[in-house]
Amino acid sequence: MLEIPRVKRLAILGSTGSVGVQALDVVSRAPDRFQVTTLAAGRNAERLAEQARRHRPQLVAVADEGAARRLREIVPRGVEVVAGEAGVVAAAAHPDVDFVLAAISGGAGLRSTAAALEAGKAVGLANKESMVLAGELLMARAAARGVTILPVDSEHSAIHQALAGHDRAFVRRLLLTASGGPLRTVPAGELADVTPQRALKHPNWSMGDKITIDSATLMNKGLEVIEARWLFGVEPSRIDIVVHPESIVHSLVEYVDGSMVAQLGVSDMRGPISYALAHPGRVALDLPPLDLGRLGKLTFEPPDPSRFPAYTLAYRALERGGTAPAALSGADEAAVAAFLAGRCRFTDIAEICADVLEAHAVEPVRSVDQALAASDAGRREAERRVARAG
Amino acid sequence: MLEIPRVKRLAILGSTGSVGVQALDVVSRAPDRFQVTTLAAGRNAERLAEQARRHRPQLVAVADEGAARRLREIVPRGVEVVAGEAGVVAAAAHPDVDFVLAAISGGAGLRSTAAALEAGKAVGLANKESMVLAGELLMARAAARGVTILPVDSEHSAIHQALAGHDRAFVRRLLLTASGGPLRTVPAGELADVTPQRALKHPNWSMGDKITIDSATLMNKGLEVIEARWLFGVEPSRIDIVVHPESIVHSLVEYVDGSMVAQLGVSDMRGPISYALAHPGRVALDLPPLDLGRLGKLTFEPPDPSRFPAYTLAYRALERGGTAPAALSGADEAAVAAFLAGRCRFTDIAEICADVLEAHAVEPVRSVDQALAASDAGRREAERRVARAG
Repeated sequence: MLEIPRVKRLAILGSTGSVGVQALDVVSRAPDRFQVTTLAAGRNAERLAEQARRHRPQLVAVADEGAARRLREIVPRGVEVVAGEAGVVAAAAHPDVDFVLAAISGGAGLRSTAAALEAGKAVGLANKESMVLAGELLMARAAARGVTILPVDSEHSAIHQALAGHDRAFVRRLLLTASGGPLRTVPAGELADVTPQRALKHPNWSMGDKITIDSATLMNKGLEVIEARWLFGVEPSRIDIVVHPESIVHSLVEYVDGSMVAQLGVSDMRGPISYALAHPGRVALDLPPLDLGRLGKLTFEPPDPSRFPAYTLAYRALERGGTAPAALSGADEAAVAAFLAGRCRFTDIAEICADVLEAHAVEPVRSVDQALAASDAGRREAERRVARAG
Repeated sequence: MLEIPRVKRLAILGSTGSVGVQALDVVSRAPDRFQVTTLAAGRNAERLAEQARRHRPQLVAVADEGAARRLREIVPRGVEVVAGEAGVVAAAAHPDVDFVLAAISGGAGLRSTAAALEAGKAVGLANKESMVLAGELLMARAAARGVTILPVDSEHSAIHQALAGHDRAFVRRLLLTASGGPLRTVPAGELADVTPQRALKHPNWSMGDKITIDSATLMNKGLEVIEARWLFGVEPSRIDIVVHPESIVHSLVEYVDGSMVAQLGVSDMRGPISYALAHPGRVALDLPPLDLGRLGKLTFEPPDPSRFPAYTLAYRALERGGTAPAALSGADEAAVAAFLAGRCRFTDIAEICADVLEAHAVEPVRSVDQALAASDAGRREAERRVARAG
C-alpha cells in the first residue's frame, strides 16, 4: 500500500471559481485528510470571507486591491489578508503548504503555478494556460525541483489514471476523448451562421463561455493535446482524438500490445479534482454511480477536421514549437471574444487562429514573461484581423 | 521505470492447446525476452515434438505414457522427455524456470498449478479450475512463497491492468463484462428448446465447447466471479457483472470516488497471454488496432437472471464456502456434457447445478486432493440427476 500523508495542507488558488468551490466541497468531505492553509482569488471578497470562516486558512490572498480592503474588514480575526499578484504568489509559495491547487483561469494562473513549482510544491493543475503557454518550461522546473504536477481536468486525469502502474516505455499513444460539443451534428454549410447562443449550449459539462465555445470549435481538444504533450512527455504524433458524445470515457492510453486502459465516470469535476487532491489516496464521493447497464451505450466517432479544423492548429503549433502555442492560445481568446460579441462568425474563429499562428514569429520559451507576451501578441494580432474584416 | 529481467525462462503447461499455441506465438515475437525451458501437454506427441524443434526446451513432459514413447522417438536430441502427471509436475517445478504458464485445462491443471506455486514460481494462470476449486488455498500458498499469480483470461487480465498503480484500499467494486453469449437475445420461452448447435455459436470468441456453453448459460461469468474473489481478494458482494455484447471492454474497476478504470482491446487471447508473460513489461503485438471511432459504439445491459440464472449460483457457492464452488464446477461439467450429448435441455443445466450445489455437504478446502474430490462428487451427483430425469 502506498504511503498517504495524514493531513495534506492545501493552497487553493482560484477558490471562488467553479473548480475552487468544488475543491472546497471535496475538502469538506474529508476533513481528516485536508487542511486549507491558504486561499486566493481575484476579487470576490464576500465569498472569500465566507470560505475563510468555514475553512480557517492562515492566509487569504486577493488579486484586486480594492477587494483586499473590503476583505480585511470581514475576514475572521487571525486570518492574514494579502493583496495583488504578489499576494497570490505568497499564497502559492506559503511555507506551510504541501499541495497547490492551481485553479486561477487564464494567463494570471500561469504566474502562480510557476511560483508554486519554484517553491517546490506539488501542484494540481486546473489552469490550462500554464501548460499551453509554458508547458516545456514548467515541466523542466518541476523536474528540477522533484515535484509532481497532477492534472485536474477530466481528460488528463483519465490519462494519469490509465498510466498509473504501467511502464511508460510501452505506451503506443494517448487517446483524448472529445464530447464533440454543442455543434457536433451541425452540417458544414450551417456552421458560418451559428449564433453564440446556440454554440453555448454544451450537452454534458457546465462550464464558462470561453471554454464552451472552445469545445464547440474543438480548439479546446487541441489545447488539451498541447497539455498532454508536456504533462506526459508524449510526442504529438502519438496523441489522437476521438469524439465521444456521452463524455463517460474521459480518455484512454494504448500500449504497444494493443491493450487500452481507460478511465470512465460521470461528468462531474469533483472526480478529477478529488483525484488530484487525494492522490495517491482517494476520497469517497457520493456522485451518482455510473451504471453502464442502464446507460446502455457509449458512442464514438472520428473528429471531422473539415467542419472543426481548430484542433489541427494545436498540432501545427507544436510543430512550429516555442512560443507558437502561446500565440495560438492568445489568438483563440480574442477570436472567441469577437464571436461572442457578434463581431465575427463561428467559422472565422479557426481561420483567424490559423492566420495568426502562421504569421507568428516563433521564439523559444525562456520565461513565463515571454510566454505571456507571446500570448498577448497573438491576442492583439487576432483583434487586428477581426477589426480589419469587420 | 520498473526493472524487467532480460530473459524470462518459461514453462508452458498445456503447450499444444489453444492458449499454449498462442503463448508460443507471443514468445516467437520477442525471442530476446523469453526462453522456453519446459513444455508440457496431454497427448499430442507430434505437435509437442514440432514445438520442441522450434523452441529447444530442456525438458518436455507429456501426461499420456503412450504419447511419451512416441515423443521420445521424434523429439530433437538433447531434449529430455518425461511422462505422466509426475512429468508435468517436473516441467512446472523445473529449477531453471522463472515463470509457469498454467494452461492445462480442467482439474488436471490444478495439480500442476499447485506444484508450480510450491516450487516458488511466478504463475500465469489460464486454468480456471485452479481458482474455482482451490482459490483460497492457492492464494495462501502463493502468499507464503512470495510469488505472484497473473491472470491470463481477458476479464481478470483487464482487472489486473485496471488495479495496477492504484491503492486497493480504495476499490469499491469489480465489474466483470460478459458477452452475453450466443443466446443473449433468445426469449425465455425458447431457451428450453435451444439445440447444442445453436448454443455453440459464440459471437466473439472462438473457444472450446464446454466454455462456449458456459458462456451461453452465463455460468462462465459466475466461475469468473469466483476466480476474481480469490485472485483480487474482493468480497463477492463487491463483484458485479454487466453484459457487453461487443467484448471490447474486458472488465472494469470502480473506486470509492466513482472513478472507473477499464481495460479495452480486440477479442484476441494473445493480448492477455502476452500481458501475463511479459509483465511488468509488454510485448509489441501486431493485432488489428482497436479503432473506437470506426467501431462506433459499445453497448451494455444488466444480466438477466430470470433467463440465465447460472451465474447467480456462483455467488451462492461462495456464500456456502469451502468445497461448494468445486462441487458447482463439477456439476456444471457433467450438466454441460449431458446437454451437448442431447441428454438434457439447455435450461436443465442451471437447474441441475442448483440442485447439486444445495445438496452438497460443504467442507473446508484443506488440500488439492480434497478440492478435486469435491468436484468429482459434484460431477457424479449431476450425472445421477441427468440419468434419473432421462
